[in-house]
Amino acid sequence: MQETYRTEISTLGEFGLIKHLTENIRLKNSSTRYGVGDDCAVMEYPADKQVLVTSDLLMEGIHFDLTYVPMKHLGYKAAMVNLSDIYAMNGTPRQMVVSIALGKRFCVEDMEAFYDGLKMACEAHEVDIVGGDTTSSLTGLAISITCIGEADKDKVVYRNGAKETDLICVSGDLGAAYMGLQLLEREKAVFNQQLQEAHRNEKTKTAERLYEAQPDFSGKEYLLERQLKPEARRDIVQALATANIRPTSMIDISDGLSSELLHICTQSGVGCRIYEEHIPLDYQTAVMAEELNMNVTTCALNGGEDYELLFTVPIADHEKVSQIKDIKIIGHITKAELGYALISRDGQEFELKAQGWNPLKG
Amino acid sequence: MQETYRTEISTLGEFGLIKHLTENIRLKNSSTRYGVGDDCAVMEYPADKQVLVTSDLLMEGIHFDLTYVPMKHLGYKAAMVNLSDIYAMNGTPRQMVVSIALGKRFCVEDMEAFYDGLKMACEAHEVDIVGGDTTSSLTGLAISITCIGEADKDKVVYRNGAKETDLICVSGDLGAAYMGLQLLEREKAVFNQQLQEAHRNEKTKTAERLYEAQPDFSGKEYLLERQLKPEARRDIVQALATANIRPTSMIDISDGLSSELLHICTQSGVGCRIYEEHIPLDYQTAVMAEELNMNVTTCALNGGEDYELLFTVPIADHEKVSQIKDIKIIGHITKAELGYALISRDGQEFELKAQGWNPLKG
Repeated sequence: MQETYRTEISTLGEFGLIKHLTENIRLKNSSTRYGVGDDCAVMEYPADKQVLVTSDLLMEGIHFDLTYVPMKHLGYKAAMVNLSDIYAMNGTPRQMVVSIALGKRFCVEDMEAFYDGLKMACEAHEVDIVGGDTTSSLTGLAISITCIGEADKDKVVYRNGAKETDLICVSGDLGAAYMGLQLLEREKAVFNQQLQEAHRNEKTKTAERLYEAQPDFSGKEYLLERQLKPEARRDIVQALATANIRPTSMIDISDGLSSELLHICTQSGVGCRIYEEHIPLDYQTAVMAEELNMNVTTCALNGGEDYELLFTVPIADHEKVSQIKDIKIIGHITKAELGYALISRDGQEFELKAQGWNPLKG
Repeated sequence: MQETYRTEISTLGEFGLIKHLTENIRLKNSSTRYGVGDDCAVMEYPADKQVLVTSDLLMEGIHFDLTYVPMKHLGYKAAMVNLSDIYAMNGTPRQMVVSIALGKRFCVEDMEAFYDGLKMACEAHEVDIVGGDTTSSLTGLAISITCIGEADKDKVVYRNGAKETDLICVSGDLGAAYMGLQLLEREKAVFNQQLQEAHRNEKTKTAERLYEAQPDFSGKEYLLERQLKPEARRDIVQALATANIRPTSMIDISDGLSSELLHICTQSGVGCRIYEEHIPLDYQTAVMAEELNMNVTTCALNGGEDYELLFTVPIADHEKVSQIKDIKIIGHITKAELGYALISRDGQEFELKAQGWNPLKG
């Protein structure tokens, strides 16, 4: 975190800080009745809508590393992660409540940057920030975001509706966010090593130059963007609605394709059969996997944080769904007895296992 | 934390732990359509209701100290704090979403105890737990709770509706939770000192006995209960409705009477005049303040975590409100120009200042 100015948070106090960060927020949604400033936010939804609520708790050192994640990107991503959960229900996000716990090392400018990112994401998705709370943390930064959305009563899509012969579809491409993380971690390791060497040799000038130097990420911009600035797939939800396709099940891919597909299968009581050759990959993901000597399919299956949508549609919608840009059919739903199968490029069958990113096992 | 059994969380994993903690939850409210287990919880509210949302982020070492707060009490209190915010809007809480970040020192039994407390609070207030999430923390425990409630469209009470001549009322009594905290902090300090001395003198037996010993809190039970097991005042909201009194403004007292009353006054654009002699105090609070050589009124004004309701009612409701058990009239609303006045027992006038508990200033 490089700041030219540093205003201590104590100069504003808790209430002053919230006021400062939220005073320019204009409420846009008709369902928003009262935003920041009371004991609760107040919403009003029409009777034909269902209300969707999702909440995420993001912890420094577990979900993000401030060594390479700028505060503005963190705010943007924290919002996107929650918006993605609303889209995964076939809903439209409308409101957001944000709580942050921060230690003394953070200043007002950090929080401004965080809120800039948060507001940018909310504006792009027409979401109102209706609650803000800041408190202290003895240690790292903690971010809690609750997102509220709506969906027509008969249009909410759960994880448990997949049926035999349904097509399994995925938006965008997979594994790039994970590759972006590997890249950033590698550069961080290199930087730390060089810094240690410079200090060991008392080369202060070299150390100073290291802080100024920016690693060369050319040719890998997409990976960084996927890791640092993910986009929740409203466009896919809208494209499906326009094409008059109602997914039978849907989930967003935050923990890796395997893990999410198994959620759909177990909750729907079905099996699945997906094909390695159909898993969408970006060129940069493949190059980076090669460079790191990793299997790119494994990265796509188990790498987290893609925030793409995984969903199933009736086989009758095959033609319609095939025509939608940025959606790939990767397989189909089977009887439960047939298990969870991955067919490799050379025709071999493997059992899909959830080895996704799981911070409680780490 | 004393446990006979200790099951490591890794034996269940993240999803297993959530499942274990939430599998016995039965959903009771008709507005709850889908609970734990998908990307979002799904609710459905009638068109004549407004939806209330509040969220709190509680951090270990800032909001609670596990040295003397048992996990079960922590769960209970974490729920109550949020329920209290819904009542403060004149609403009825219906759903709760819970996220927890925990380090490796916590075990499954800790989480069970936390959820026991959480469920006990939710059952007493007929609230459905519709979302649960657990993740890792590198350091302390972090708890994020979002509570969703409802209120009739024309019955939501904000902080900004207080009018000149309105009566200022408060439920229960104030300052006891703060005294309870002082008591626990004092015992903790005594314990730590004795432990250090025992270790310095290599008195292992004494040290062991210290761990087993329970400090004598007799005569101070109420203070501990107020600190460790606060109760959100649904009864007051219901009593006001029964008496056909609609408060013009309301807030719950979490940061001390002064701070909350100033929120009402500044947001309503009015002044206030409250009387020291009318501030409700419990006998134990007064005794403890004396013992600690503190001014009991200061404790009531600035001590936090009472979770009582502070509200204003039209002067025409004077008789009706006077008859409600456990509500005290402590003063009245004035023109803004008259400022925020506290009249002491001896008739002197002081300006009320917000010196409430503020973790960001600490």
